Amino acid sequence: MARARIGIWLIGAKGGVASTATVGLIALQKGLIANAGLVSELPEFQQIGLTPWKNFVLGGHEIRDVRSYDEALRLHSESRVIDGGVLAKCKSELDKLEGRIRPGTVLNVGSTIEQLAGAEVRNRRESARQAIERVQADLKEFAKKERLAHVVVVNVSSTEPAVDPASLPARWKDLNKLIDKRGPGPLPASSLYAVAALDLGYSYLNFTPSLGSAAAAIDELARERDSRHMGHDGKTGETLLKSILAPMFAKRNLQVMSWVGHNIFGNMDAQVLDDPANKQAKVTSKDRLLGQILGYQPQTLVSIERIDSMGDWKTAWDHVHFTGFLGTPMTFQFIWQGCDSLLAAPLVLDLVRFTERAWRNGDTGLLKFLASFFKSPLGVAEHDFGLQFQMLQAWASGLKAM
Amino acid sequence: MARARIGIWLIGAKGGVASTATVGLIALQKGLIANAGLVSELPEFQQIGLTPWKNFVLGGHEIRDVRSYDEALRLHSESRVIDGGVLAKCKSELDKLEGRIRPGTVLNVGSTIEQLAGAEVRNRRESARQAIERVQADLKEFAKKERLAHVVVVNVSSTEPAVDPASLPARWKDLNKLIDKRGPGPLPASSLYAVAALDLGYSYLNFTPSLGSAAAAIDELARERDSRHMGHDGKTGETLLKSILAPMFAKRNLQVMSWVGHNIFGNMDAQVLDDPANKQAKVTSKDRLLGQILGYQPQTLVSIERIDSMGDWKTAWDHVHFTGFLGTPMTFQFIWQGCDSLLAAPLVLDLVRFTERAWRNGDTGLLKFLASFFKSPLGVAEHDFGLQFQMLQAWASGLKAM
Amino acid sequence: MARARIGIWLIGAKGGVASTATVGLIALQKGLIANAGLVSELPEFQQIGLTPWKNFVLGGHEIRDVRSYDEALRLHSESRVIDGGVLAKCKSELDKLEGRIRPGTVLNVGSTIEQLAGAEVRNRRESARQAIERVQADLKEFAKKERLAHVVVVNVSSTEPAVDPASLPARWKDLNKLIDKRGPGPLPASSLYAVAALDLGYSYLNFTPSLGSAAAAIDELARERDSRHMGHDGKTGETLLKSILAPMFAKRNLQVMSWVGHNIFGNMDAQVLDDPANKQAKVTSKDRLLGQILGYQPQTLVSIERIDSMGDWKTAWDHVHFTGFLGTPMTFQFIWQGCDSLLAAPLVLDLVRFTERAWRNGDTGLLKFLASFFKSPLGVAEHDFGLQFQMLQAWASGLKAM
Amino acid sequence: MARARIGIWLIGAKGGVASTATVGLIALQKGLIANAGLVSELPEFQQIGLTPWKNFVLGGHEIRDVRSYDEALRLHSESRVIDGGVLAKCKSELDKLEGRIRPGTVLNVGSTIEQLAGAEVRNRRESARQAIERVQADLKEFAKKERLAHVVVVNVSSTEPAVDPASLPARWKDLNKLIDKRGPGPLPASSLYAVAALDLGYSYLNFTPSLGSAAAAIDELARERDSRHMGHDGKTGETLLKSILAPMFAKRNLQVMSWVGHNIFGNMDAQVLDDPANKQAKVTSKDRLLGQILGYQPQTLVSIERIDSMGDWKTAWDHVHFTGFLGTPMTFQFIWQGCDSLLAAPLVLDLVRFTERAWRNGDTGLLKFLASFFKSPLGVAEHDFGLQFQMLQAWASGLKAM
Repeated sequence: MARARIGIWLIGAKGGVASTATVGLIALQKGLIANAGLVSELPEFQQIGLTPWKNFVLGGHEIRDVRSYDEALRLHSESRVIDGGVLAKCKSELDKLEGRIRPGTVLNVGSTIEQLAGAEVRNRRESARQAIERVQADLKEFAKKERLAHVVVVNVSSTEPAVDPASLPARWKDLNKLIDKRGPGPLPASSLYAVAALDLGYSYLNFTPSLGSAAAAIDELARERDSRHMGHDGKTGETLLKSILAPMFAKRNLQVMSWVGHNIFGNMDAQVLDDPANKQAKVTSKDRLLGQILGYQPQTLVSIERIDSMGDWKTAWDHVHFTGFLGTPMTFQFIWQGCDSLLAAPLVLDLVRFTERAWRNGDTGLLKFLASFFKSPLGVAEHDFGLQFQMLQAWASGLKAM
Repeated sequence: MARARIGIWLIGAKGGVASTATVGLIALQKGLIANAGLVSELPEFQQIGLTPWKNFVLGGHEIRDVRSYDEALRLHSESRVIDGGVLAKCKSELDKLEGRIRPGTVLNVGSTIEQLAGAEVRNRRESARQAIERVQADLKEFAKKERLAHVVVVNVSSTEPAVDPASLPARWKDLNKLIDKRGPGPLPASSLYAVAALDLGYSYLNFTPSLGSAAAAIDELARERDSRHMGHDGKTGETLLKSILAPMFAKRNLQVMSWVGHNIFGNMDAQVLDDPANKQAKVTSKDRLLGQILGYQPQTLVSIERIDSMGDWKTAWDHVHFTGFLGTPMTFQFIWQGCDSLLAAPLVLDLVRFTERAWRNGDTGLLKFLASFFKSPLGVAEHDFGLQFQMLQAWASGLKAM
Repeated sequence: MARARIGIWLIGAKGGVASTATVGLIALQKGLIANAGLVSELPEFQQIGLTPWKNFVLGGHEIRDVRSYDEALRLHSESRVIDGGVLAKCKSELDKLEGRIRPGTVLNVGSTIEQLAGAEVRNRRESARQAIERVQADLKEFAKKERLAHVVVVNVSSTEPAVDPASLPARWKDLNKLIDKRGPGPLPASSLYAVAALDLGYSYLNFTPSLGSAAAAIDELARERDSRHMGHDGKTGETLLKSILAPMFAKRNLQVMSWVGHNIFGNMDAQVLDDPANKQAKVTSKDRLLGQILGYQPQTLVSIERIDSMGDWKTAWDHVHFTGFLGTPMTFQFIWQGCDSLLAAPLVLDLVRFTERAWRNGDTGLLKFLASFFKSPLGVAEHDFGLQFQMLQAWASGLKAM
Repeated sequence: MARARIGIWLIGAKGGVASTATVGLIALQKGLIANAGLVSELPEFQQIGLTPWKNFVLGGHEIRDVRSYDEALRLHSESRVIDGGVLAKCKSELDKLEGRIRPGTVLNVGSTIEQLAGAEVRNRRESARQAIERVQADLKEFAKKERLAHVVVVNVSSTEPAVDPASLPARWKDLNKLIDKRGPGPLPASSLYAVAALDLGYSYLNFTPSLGSAAAAIDELARERDSRHMGHDGKTGETLLKSILAPMFAKRNLQVMSWVGHNIFGNMDAQVLDDPANKQAKVTSKDRLLGQILGYQPQTLVSIERIDSMGDWKTAWDHVHFTGFLGTPMTFQFIWQGCDSLLAAPLVLDLVRFTERAWRNGDTGLLKFLASFFKSPLGVAEHDFGLQFQMLQAWASGLKAM
């Protein structure tokens, strides 16, 4: 039986994560690389009927006037992220991809992101409703042209300034009315894309700390339309380590007095996070889990700073100060030197693959079993990575044979 | 109902771990310290009928001619392990303890440990059988004098040179015959204590990498006598972290190319490990788990070296070199600065408490549910700390109400 | 020949640095401690006629209502800075010291420091002139009562908000007129103490980033009165390391692209630096030297944050990203775990001792040969620690025999 | 005036350091790279008449059957040492270089190095005298064909097993007689090359811990022939840092209790050092300086281990445990992640350039002013890098104008 073709639609389609995911997918399809870093390639997920890489087709929205290949080349030359030989073999596919990328929207993304946009995108005047409809037209055209059985939309764009979900109406019908008003409305771009996708029955994943589908009303829309979504903020580096290490302190009854984490990096994400409004959303997301895992709140400090020379390489230094038996303070420190895009990109592909399988399985609403992929998993209180991973394993074991 | 009194019998009763456990137990009984570092004090173990600290009585074997209080004082003055104020309040109890400590045996402990022993112990001539009988006489006298319902023997003495369990007869009756021969026989001291305890129906725990009860024949003895045992090598620092961190690399499909761990410390344990024969047993124990957790064997290097100025503070630097998506190498490093005795001592007390509860529950043979406490848990292939801890939780949930 | 008695007058006489210097001096006078950490005890300074420790007498100003012994005890119990046994032997001297400590002034110290002050100090109404005269009366009384040949005033109080020296008149006569006006005038407390001391012919040292004697007009006063001064900001930890390490990169022509330094600590100094106004003075002082040493300005980031559990222990993580031959980026990182007071206190005593010797030698004005002790040495452009130390050695070699 | 052409003759001409130096020199000659990492390009050495890069010509001895370009390519692909674009532009020059490389000798290099050699080199039977004469013929042919005014021979080959210089005759005439005997004689290959070069009046530099010209008799030969030499063991990474940092502890009178340094790397040098005989020479060289700088011997531990995945990247973790004022222990740690070849190669070129200038200046015998480049500078007791660098500066200032 010929399997169906599945669309991956990336918001921020030429950013670092998207470029790396794109080159990676092409390289997988061409058999140029091994499967390191891909969760869905672990032995335990080989019998659950995941769609093979070759059946996926990429497209997306982008606000900048750049070319995919140039962005990927920059990751190679500035940060040694992508091997030059592999990249050369992917060039023709990257050039073809240009035709499947549409201009995005900068509604409510804040001035720092706005300034990155090309003139056409920046000068476009549209209401929230018009933006949604434009996005939906793009998605439908993509699905039709490429003969896709399903589309998974993934937000991998820059972090927007924080929006408090509680400031929005809790019901979809009320939120929908606000969207109909003239002007940009209350939703940031990440949520407009979410509404557009979920309303069409497509899946939506938010790999960033932006609002996306985190509003209750948007979750209601997803359930009404039998679509599915999950988020938010991919757990790739320092926070992943926190969700691994904090359980050790908890289970050994070691009292964490303070946990300090300093992060430095230098890619475009760093430029956006240099704006305090955008940074706050990120820092909150990185700092949330310790209290839940430990059962009390130690003093915490999280910084994330732009250091240009680091490029795509994120270095984190964490200092954990704790007391043990008889009250004596001890110290644990780690230094993480990871390449942001290389850690994020495979998870994006994994999430799409698991979500597509959930679509075939009839799962709707929040896909909580994907919690282990996110810093702030929607609807999931558990932050222990080991226990989150067991949710994924349990879902996989329970899948109907297909 | 008055609860029964329970004996804790420490082999190596005046070493660093034992001294810290002793001061800690006294301090707990006097209400001088909080419960930090004690696993059995976690909320989830409060409803399973563990025996309160005040019901435990300490005794033990020791080969050196030193006083408990002096050893504890040295931990205070040389390594700031124990608070001076707490120690002063425990002095009278430590002095009383002297009467419950008996001379140990140095049969087959190797020359480095032998040299630590006092003249009486070093010059004693006894066969393996005589040593076992002497130990049993000590244990029975302890139980009788202190009116104890049960005794848990814990080996916290220095690491003996490695003995290959496969070199011993697999059946108890055959091993027992060897013990009857004249001379020291094939078993190191740690195993003679194990035989002595298990034969009496007492519980035996091996917190060290020494052989202890790891021989199949000794396990058979335990099952025949309805006694229980577990080991070996307490998981307190660098190896604990490996058993926490390696699962992250495995579950994210990140390929570990090499894992280097260098440990430095300066206490008496360090002096003993300065002998290559003794060190080998330790290093093997620290290096075993990565292959099991990862599913393949990366290049590994483990060193543990004596640096006198460090005293009881063990510092470990671990360097993990791994590849992710698209094959690019990345690096994770950690630095652990822990106080060996403070990390080990509460686990000794926890192990005793859980084991005593298992005794009341009728558990016999290997107590596999204690796997999370050990670097090389007997009879347990699982090395992922999170999964090991779930074994402890499952045991606790399944306990008969008492 | 009986040597003269010399006064050490500490501004912030009960703070962490002062308390440690005080206990240290007493311990040196009683022969309780060795000379570790004391520069003036190096072999090369043994033939230059430095005054022995027993000839120094302590006094000072303090704004808080606390007792010296209690502050020292807190350093012992909270941060294990001072050994309990040593401290006990110094108690009676610490109690006697109370009589030689006078209430300080909080003129222009900023609200964060003001809030630390006792009611008497906080509520005192005095003009700048009155404050100077009160301080001078205290100093003269100290010198008279203790029969002192000379007094060295050292500022070890909390960091004041930054004052731009360029905002002050450059000539002493003009500044002096401003002091005569009613009200607090333009000078922060650190400078009022400097004026008071230098006007009397005493020596003044500024161990903090506060303004102190850094104004040109105050230097003129010092030269007019034949007194001497130096500052500012003691170089004790991370910045010391920068002044050691940056020359290596310079001399090997390795290009530093970025230098990130994160500092955490938890003492009272940390509380004061939690106020952004006060912090700015500190950060500027820590960040100045790299450009001078390297000859170009790399991207730098310096943070210093209050983490309460750290107490007096300052931990710094520095990440240096540099390129070498053929342009490939490399990394150097260090972690410094030092006890702030223990690193600063001996330097305070050394500075006093060298300054007193300079007084006998007839040196006046800026004591530039003390540059190696300061983050921002007044009047000295050289920041390479090795070269700065040679200035001290050269001064010592050139001393007239006495 | 046209400047003379100068030969650089590399022993180990296709190893990692040599390959990097070669590509680097070609890239400098072609203007492809900036001068980062080159000491001789510092502003202070621009007026002393150093020979420009374009006047240098490369040649050398090699024992392996490999091609220069392939070795450089491996540094690019395995360790990202050399940029692919730069390398491609140097290929034709690398290919031409093949004609100027001659088979080396493996006399007394130990079995580990011997096994690396090609069949021709390994099977050659020659006495020490024959080897010297063959080397001299190669050097003379090189000088003649390339019309060279002078040749500087630099040993950058693998580390030989240690030879005790004291085991050799102290006078050249006695050593010369031993060389005349049949068989390999007492000298390792590194010394045979030294003798060959110095006897011809050429310069010899030993960048490795091998014996080279360190024997007193060979120094006598150099002085007799008016030739010049220096060594040994290039100071590129961890030891450089020790020579920078130890002076700080000394000058602040901080007592170093222990200094632990663990090094890991994975290039061919690492394979050779895996042989304990070869490793000992290296470790001794890395460990020598602390006692000299500090004035006392702390406990030290130096390890250097082969971890294949690291390739040419050497990571060092150093842990310094020291006491300061009042005896409290503190800790300094650093992590150095440097690329061995990239750090060594520019120093090789600098050394050649300075040595050639010394030749024109008429300097003969030991070139002590080059001490800052070496872990164990011959004839120089000073190990403080800052002071060693001043020796270089002093030499440069004293040069006769040319």
